[in-house]
Amino acid sequence: MAIAVDAMGGDRGPDVLVRGAVAASRDQGIEIVLVGIEDILKEELQRLGGGDLPISIYPASQVVDMKESPADSLRHKKDSSIRVAFELARQGKAEGIVSAGNSGATLATALVTLGRIGDVRPAIATLMPTLKKPVVMIDVGANVDCRPHHLLQFGIMASVFSRELLGNLDPRVGLLSIGEEDSKGNQQVKKAYDLLAGTDLNFVGNVEGREIFKGNVDVVVCDGFVGNICLKLSEGLAESILIMLESEVEEKLAATMHYALTKSVLRKFHKKIDYAEYGGAPLLGIRGIAIICHGLSSPKAVKNAIRVAHELARVKLADKLAKSLSKRRDLLKAA
Amino acid sequence: MAIAVDAMGGDRGPDVLVRGAVAASRDQGIEIVLVGIEDILKEELQRLGGGDLPISIYPASQVVDMKESPADSLRHKKDSSIRVAFELARQGKAEGIVSAGNSGATLATALVTLGRIGDVRPAIATLMPTLKKPVVMIDVGANVDCRPHHLLQFGIMASVFSRELLGNLDPRVGLLSIGEEDSKGNQQVKKAYDLLAGTDLNFVGNVEGREIFKGNVDVVVCDGFVGNICLKLSEGLAESILIMLESEVEEKLAATMHYALTKSVLRKFHKKIDYAEYGGAPLLGIRGIAIICHGLSSPKAVKNAIRVAHELARVKLADKLAKSLSKRRDLLKAA
Repeated sequence: MAIAVDAMGGDRGPDVLVRGAVAASRDQGIEIVLVGIEDILKEELQRLGGGDLPISIYPASQVVDMKESPADSLRHKKDSSIRVAFELARQGKAEGIVSAGNSGATLATALVTLGRIGDVRPAIATLMPTLKKPVVMIDVGANVDCRPHHLLQFGIMASVFSRELLGNLDPRVGLLSIGEEDSKGNQQVKKAYDLLAGTDLNFVGNVEGREIFKGNVDVVVCDGFVGNICLKLSEGLAESILIMLESEVEEKLAATMHYALTKSVLRKFHKKIDYAEYGGAPLLGIRGIAIICHGLSSPKAVKNAIRVAHELARVKLADKLAKSLSKRRDLLKAA
Repeated sequence: MAIAVDAMGGDRGPDVLVRGAVAASRDQGIEIVLVGIEDILKEELQRLGGGDLPISIYPASQVVDMKESPADSLRHKKDSSIRVAFELARQGKAEGIVSAGNSGATLATALVTLGRIGDVRPAIATLMPTLKKPVVMIDVGANVDCRPHHLLQFGIMASVFSRELLGNLDPRVGLLSIGEEDSKGNQQVKKAYDLLAGTDLNFVGNVEGREIFKGNVDVVVCDGFVGNICLKLSEGLAESILIMLESEVEEKLAATMHYALTKSVLRKFHKKIDYAEYGGAPLLGIRGIAIICHGLSSPKAVKNAIRVAHELARVKLADKLAKSLSKRRDLLKAA
């Protein structure tokens, strides 16, 4: 079955989405449906030489603006590329969807079309690079006011995701806080600590911001307000450090032979740690597969997101999340 | 008048504190009282050649452990170096204190000795490096469960601090959130937005994590849980990026002539953005001057913290904070 790509969303327009789809289809043989304004997508697909690949186009006449309120988009844009992509998934015509568009609208549309698993709060997970393997951070923006049992749900879901996508058999789950001791944290986190400690998850306790990048845990749980700030702070800081370092290198090495070489190493590294290059963030807790990409995603990031969506559909992630949550139903009810 | 230095606190022991004090006294002529175990400090001071400087020693027989609970330290260690340093300030024998010790205990001791200004929540401010001037982030750990009006208090205090220490006449105050629009954020931040917008502060609205390092605001307001996580995340990420980059440089440049030069540029840069090198974080909202240093502070960081404490005492920061808060008494009451 195909992955539906919202081909109109994102800050860079259809070109990037179609390029990513062509690459995913060519390199990995993934079947894709591009959803959006037919004429534009037909032309892009021809231009980029994707005519002979298993890529089809499904028309949607509207586009949700990046700044539009989710409620407005639901009310007034029933034929938007986001909405139509999700409808294809709901009707069983697509095995998952990928969007680099308005993430609030994507989240809201996922809820009204596919719906949530039980009464879970769907959350956005993302992979953060570390000194070792990437770590799953959850939630990075779907829920800005969480209660402790929501953090418990996030821990359960991210454990399944880490196992299925990254092959961690017994993922180590950490809770983001301001000190390692269980007495450290705000009210929300202290209660979530107790809940997580009472499960059969491989809960390793609190982790501090400093520890995330060491890669000693597989999952970092936090509420969506904190997680979103952390994610954007990381992007901004990485960017700024490299800008500062480039000017330092310029100052110190400009007169030397190896200036150009050093500069090129820096540039490549910059790309390597650029979050927009990663394959997007899965929305966990809905009855289906949806990947939310950074609005500034590159074709490579879109390609990776399509690959991840395909992989998560193949392992039936939504079913596994439902099973894992249902197994812990009593625990979640008591929380 | 002298700055009292808790010479026993921190992860690196008295050597670092005494070195920092000797440097501050020698270079800037600041009068200093080292507080702690007399024999140890006498020996250190002699060894480091500080005998002829305006540095005296004031005895305190106990040391608060870095992991000790603040309540325990208050109850059982009335003759600790932290407590005695604050007592000197309370008695008017010191114009400010500097500690690299247990920050929870420092905060608690500040409250029981000097006390708070009115009913304000004292908060820890810190300077973060940016592409332009450093930005003041407040609170980075004193208050883990804040109400919206506490964020208002932080904004008022940090504005005064930014003006007095950094010379920003009308500091631009931003509120840390997950989007620029006033509709973005959790309940706490949305209410704080309205409160800050209702003041005569130069409130520029929400700032995202990504924006902090661009240096387009002078003050970033957040609650202490979020701020502490951001601070430690920044430390950890900066560290990790440079470790990754060193290994990249090693891989790409090891065979070239300029490997050593590039490596030394990286090492120097690492030091430049190392948060532990900065001069510590002032505790704003108490009736006096106290600077909390990173436990891993270098002598240079301690020296800078002493200089900042001296400068804040000179401009009578606590009085100015009291005045600024009192001027907005009605606003704070209504909040």
